[in-house]
Amino acid sequence: MNIEKHKMIYEGKAKRLYETASPGALIQEFKDSLTAFNAQKKGSFEGKGKINHQITKLIFKYLSDSHIANHFLSSIDDRHMLIEKLQMSPLEVVVRNRVAGSLAKRLGLEEGMRLGAPIVEFYYKDDALGDPIVTEDHALLLGVATRSDLDELKSKALDINLLLQKLFSEIGIELVDFKLEFGRNAFGHIVLADEISPDSCRLWDQKTQEKLDKDRFRRDLGKVEESYKIVCDKLLKKLGAKA
Amino acid sequence: MNIEKHKMIYEGKAKRLYETASPGALIQEFKDSLTAFNAQKKGSFEGKGKINHQITKLIFKYLSDSHIANHFLSSIDDRHMLIEKLQMSPLEVVVRNRVAGSLAKRLGLEEGMRLGAPIVEFYYKDDALGDPIVTEDHALLLGVATRSDLDELKSKALDINLLLQKLFSEIGIELVDFKLEFGRNAFGHIVLADEISPDSCRLWDQKTQEKLDKDRFRRDLGKVEESYKIVCDKLLKKLGAKA
Repeated sequence: MNIEKHKMIYEGKAKRLYETASPGALIQEFKDSLTAFNAQKKGSFEGKGKINHQITKLIFKYLSDSHIANHFLSSIDDRHMLIEKLQMSPLEVVVRNRVAGSLAKRLGLEEGMRLGAPIVEFYYKDDALGDPIVTEDHALLLGVATRSDLDELKSKALDINLLLQKLFSEIGIELVDFKLEFGRNAFGHIVLADEISPDSCRLWDQKTQEKLDKDRFRRDLGKVEESYKIVCDKLLKKLGAKA
Repeated sequence: MNIEKHKMIYEGKAKRLYETASPGALIQEFKDSLTAFNAQKKGSFEGKGKINHQITKLIFKYLSDSHIANHFLSSIDDRHMLIEKLQMSPLEVVVRNRVAGSLAKRLGLEEGMRLGAPIVEFYYKDDALGDPIVTEDHALLLGVATRSDLDELKSKALDINLLLQKLFSEIGIELVDFKLEFGRNAFGHIVLADEISPDSCRLWDQKTQEKLDKDRFRRDLGKVEESYKIVCDKLLKKLGAKA
């Protein structure tokens, strides 16, 4: 495809967004940079943008096939995708199947503890505030969602969890937790956005429990690039025919 | 009253608990110390324990008269009260009528903003973890409450809010927010415990908006002792006849 980037309208830690000739579509570019701890730790590896683009593309197509509306329209090249322009929600939605990361720290629980049922958390996307966790009442107070929006976000997040758990388990990977972002499209519908990749998910090898995600970077475990590639290759092998 | 202190079973930042000859009753002693920011800031003033004992006693009697079960049994002397022994919940319940303190910091909102409806938050009482805010799912995961316990805690906290708002407004004070602790008694009922005082509430003068609570200590505003005394004297004048 030959779609031209117009004005850059957003640059985040791992992605850039550009306007296009079409008012309803944007270009999402995947950068090679890696950041953690609210960008206090920075890194990158060549090809990371391509890998995350590939993984996100495969997963968004898989979710579309399962009737989960998302912003992916088409792939432009190996690090750019065309996406539906959305009014983004400042709430990040986290789904957890096991205790890990900030949940382990917050509650003083051991990492790896399995949850009886998945839990959903909301975070308020604001770098200056350090993306704080918020209760539903806080979200209502901030005016960033209605009660019914929150119910819909939770319900969609749990549906996506079931689909992703199934997909990853079929390639020998356990989905420990993940972060989603949503937006509202021109028709007023809530649509999944952003990316789904080892940057936004905790993925453990089912057999060895080895981490295959950004925790390798956060915790200096080495083999960051190799782990992202493993996830990508397994997804490609599983879903590639449809890609 | 002449009731003997037995073994000390708890020493907190502002109170001590002692066993008594009766297995169902404890003595709660109010200390003169003041702490803030998870005890990183320490202070005290002579007579603070007496003032908080007096305020708590008046408020707990007022709440009893309004059918809010609480642990207060009787006053022993000017800094000791006899209380019902409870199995304490590690959840602190915070009710807010205006944005202040940690809520202002968390959400980046201006202190003083009025809330359309009061909000209730839960915190997990654990010094090592810094008393983190928790969602209801976190509380369930920690095994410290059931869904029905959480509903009951919220409902009791909101009832207490209405009663305290009324009481304070009648003495020219606005109840901005407050923290409650609860426990379960021998009959399995959830009962209000701990204290209600300028240590645990934000109280603003209705006319001048002057702070009459622990924020004077937290923020080095001076007149700490005077402010606690104002609250105590106003409550004594209002409720003293019944005390």
